[in-house]
Amino acid sequence: MTYARMNAEERKAEYTRVQQEYRALKEKNLNLNMARGKPSKEQIDQANGLFELMRDPADYVTDGIDVRTYGELAGIPAARRLFAEVLGCRPEQVFVGGNSSLQLMYDTISKAYTHGLLHSPRPWCKEERVKWLCPVPGYDRHFKVTETFGFELLSIPMTEEGPDMDAVEAAVQDPAVKGIWCVPKFSNPEGIIFSDAVIRRMAALKPAAPDFLIMWDNAYCIHEFEGPFTPFPDMLSLCEENGNADMVFEFFSTSKITMPGAGIACFACSEGNMAYMKKLIDIQTIGFDKVNQQRQVLFLQNKAHMLEMMRERAKIMAPKFRCVTETLEREIAPLEIADWKYPKGGYFISLDAMPGTAKRTLELCREAGVTMTGAGATFPYGKDPKDSNIRIAPSLPPVEELREAIAVLCVCLKLSALEALGV
Amino acid sequence: MTYARMNAEERKAEYTRVQQEYRALKEKNLNLNMARGKPSKEQIDQANGLFELMRDPADYVTDGIDVRTYGELAGIPAARRLFAEVLGCRPEQVFVGGNSSLQLMYDTISKAYTHGLLHSPRPWCKEERVKWLCPVPGYDRHFKVTETFGFELLSIPMTEEGPDMDAVEAAVQDPAVKGIWCVPKFSNPEGIIFSDAVIRRMAALKPAAPDFLIMWDNAYCIHEFEGPFTPFPDMLSLCEENGNADMVFEFFSTSKITMPGAGIACFACSEGNMAYMKKLIDIQTIGFDKVNQQRQVLFLQNKAHMLEMMRERAKIMAPKFRCVTETLEREIAPLEIADWKYPKGGYFISLDAMPGTAKRTLELCREAGVTMTGAGATFPYGKDPKDSNIRIAPSLPPVEELREAIAVLCVCLKLSALEALGV
Repeated sequence: MTYARMNAEERKAEYTRVQQEYRALKEKNLNLNMARGKPSKEQIDQANGLFELMRDPADYVTDGIDVRTYGELAGIPAARRLFAEVLGCRPEQVFVGGNSSLQLMYDTISKAYTHGLLHSPRPWCKEERVKWLCPVPGYDRHFKVTETFGFELLSIPMTEEGPDMDAVEAAVQDPAVKGIWCVPKFSNPEGIIFSDAVIRRMAALKPAAPDFLIMWDNAYCIHEFEGPFTPFPDMLSLCEENGNADMVFEFFSTSKITMPGAGIACFACSEGNMAYMKKLIDIQTIGFDKVNQQRQVLFLQNKAHMLEMMRERAKIMAPKFRCVTETLEREIAPLEIADWKYPKGGYFISLDAMPGTAKRTLELCREAGVTMTGAGATFPYGKDPKDSNIRIAPSLPPVEELREAIAVLCVCLKLSALEALGV
Repeated sequence: MTYARMNAEERKAEYTRVQQEYRALKEKNLNLNMARGKPSKEQIDQANGLFELMRDPADYVTDGIDVRTYGELAGIPAARRLFAEVLGCRPEQVFVGGNSSLQLMYDTISKAYTHGLLHSPRPWCKEERVKWLCPVPGYDRHFKVTETFGFELLSIPMTEEGPDMDAVEAAVQDPAVKGIWCVPKFSNPEGIIFSDAVIRRMAALKPAAPDFLIMWDNAYCIHEFEGPFTPFPDMLSLCEENGNADMVFEFFSTSKITMPGAGIACFACSEGNMAYMKKLIDIQTIGFDKVNQQRQVLFLQNKAHMLEMMRERAKIMAPKFRCVTETLEREIAPLEIADWKYPKGGYFISLDAMPGTAKRTLELCREAGVTMTGAGATFPYGKDPKDSNIRIAPSLPPVEELREAIAVLCVCLKLSALEALGV
């Protein structure tokens, strides 16, 4: 029977029963962390081959460039070609940086703030106000980048096929609205793949701001863990076809393909943006770590090989996601106290608990030794207006630990729902 | 006989003779680049041992941290300890970043601009004007960082023992003056080691700006190529003793110890600044490449071992610097048309040509196939008011090529001097 249909007495009995379960779990003194989308040790071990490379002096040189010395601000040509192949754009549109795509994103926004973008009338720090569109639920680290520069964050609801484009099209009529965050494939946290229709409307936007910026974070574009690889369109071409060539910066990294924090990241953009950004970045650095770029290229080889590697990766990831959804299916579905998505790739499962219970649920989890992403994290300013969304990050713990953690989550979902319904 | 003492006829004869030499050199069709302080291939080969490391899985873990995964924003403890030992500060004062100290410097200034520093009344982008002190001659990339943010660059003359501290003390009375660039050991380009007196006066400054910032770029602090290692004081302690703990950020990297662009860089600062900057950097990145941090630590081991490596390095560097100074001594000294320094470390030789002749000299060099650092580069806005300073970067070419390049430089110095004196 669902909790909502129970009468007061039934709920009270259920509450007592679940409390007993909770106490039993607490006595296990668990200490499990599922706060972030951290790859597991098993998963990272799949990339240890990186350490076997660069032993042949012939590998020091690529396209005539000694990767060990200064130069090649935009990255080694082989890395630019590799990412262009993955993203479906041209190598000249790719800038290969260091180990962090977040840093490239931050720096893009930061340079818009300090210097302005290609079509900015002035640096954004000289604007009276800057507003920014945040599809929700979304990625907390994205939101924080735009928050730290003092932008006003506006929530845009996510639909089953991406951001609500009616809302986006209406919002960009305001010239103070300067951009939007997007994770177009396996969105964080919902795992939604933007539909073709959404992507086409996004590429065809006619924003009032001449320097409107789509931050297209394609972090999970080859990160299927279930089913075949889903091709995705090249957003750069689509924008170009719509006369919006300079409106988008796309981001990608190998952090969740090779090693977290020891991979390489890139941005891709129009040739106009590339020339503009290279001039600015040239003041910031002589160049990024080309030895590691070469190491990653030698290891990853090409798109086909990368997809093959990701199929191996899927064998580690899929059982973890199944463990979560099967447990929720069994324990929570019959009670009708939460909804969740069934992603086929990415790093997260997004769960909507009964409104007003997310914070309480995660507090109960923490007391039982299970740390999850904080409630509200998936909304601007960390404030979920419905106090409902919970991001589950199943990648780090082994399946056995994950099973325990999800058991705790289910019990806490029940307790908080019963409390909310009145016991 | 010196050129100045020659009469018109003698100068004319000399000019004709030197022109012949120049034509002969031009016919060699040289193509030599001495524009930047790039390490040579021979020098980089000394670090190829880096590629042999990280083969034992035990090396993946340091102080209980798996270097292959996310985390440890300020760097692995072993790298923080290593740099603290080299710089003479505490490990908690060290933030180990990516491959580029220039990037850490840019980002420090950028964050001052976007967010302000620990004691800033407001972000620098909200200040009406920001002025910045540039000891001259100095490092063009430093000057460009502060130029790109629109600061007004004020030249401070360098003396034999560092920046003219009378001028610095006077300048910091202006609250719009927010900082100064310093390369305290083997300054770029003069190779001057700041004297104890200069360093003590610098640490004891009482600037009007509460957020005055000393950018202490200790890039060459163990880069002797002649004579024994010269110890240097810990600027952080000195500032602290003077009640100025938060006034300095120090920078260092292994780019010119292991591999250019594939080393690791750090900044060191007060614990107060560290807490403040970590909060800001935490928005920008999840962390820098800890695998490369570990690789560098395993390779460099400790300060004693690093100094030993630098003594091996000196065997490559010293003959190059000797080649330059001996040729100048022989060809130019008797003519009294230029002065130069005799550095014992660092990457450059600074030469002051006859006023008004630096641009012309380098133009002639270029026509003869020898590219040097552009005239004026060592001054703010690329403008040397005396058109005199030339930066010689002898590290890249093998000695034989260097000899040819310096021969060209000497001939061009003679031609431009004779032209200036009237022929």
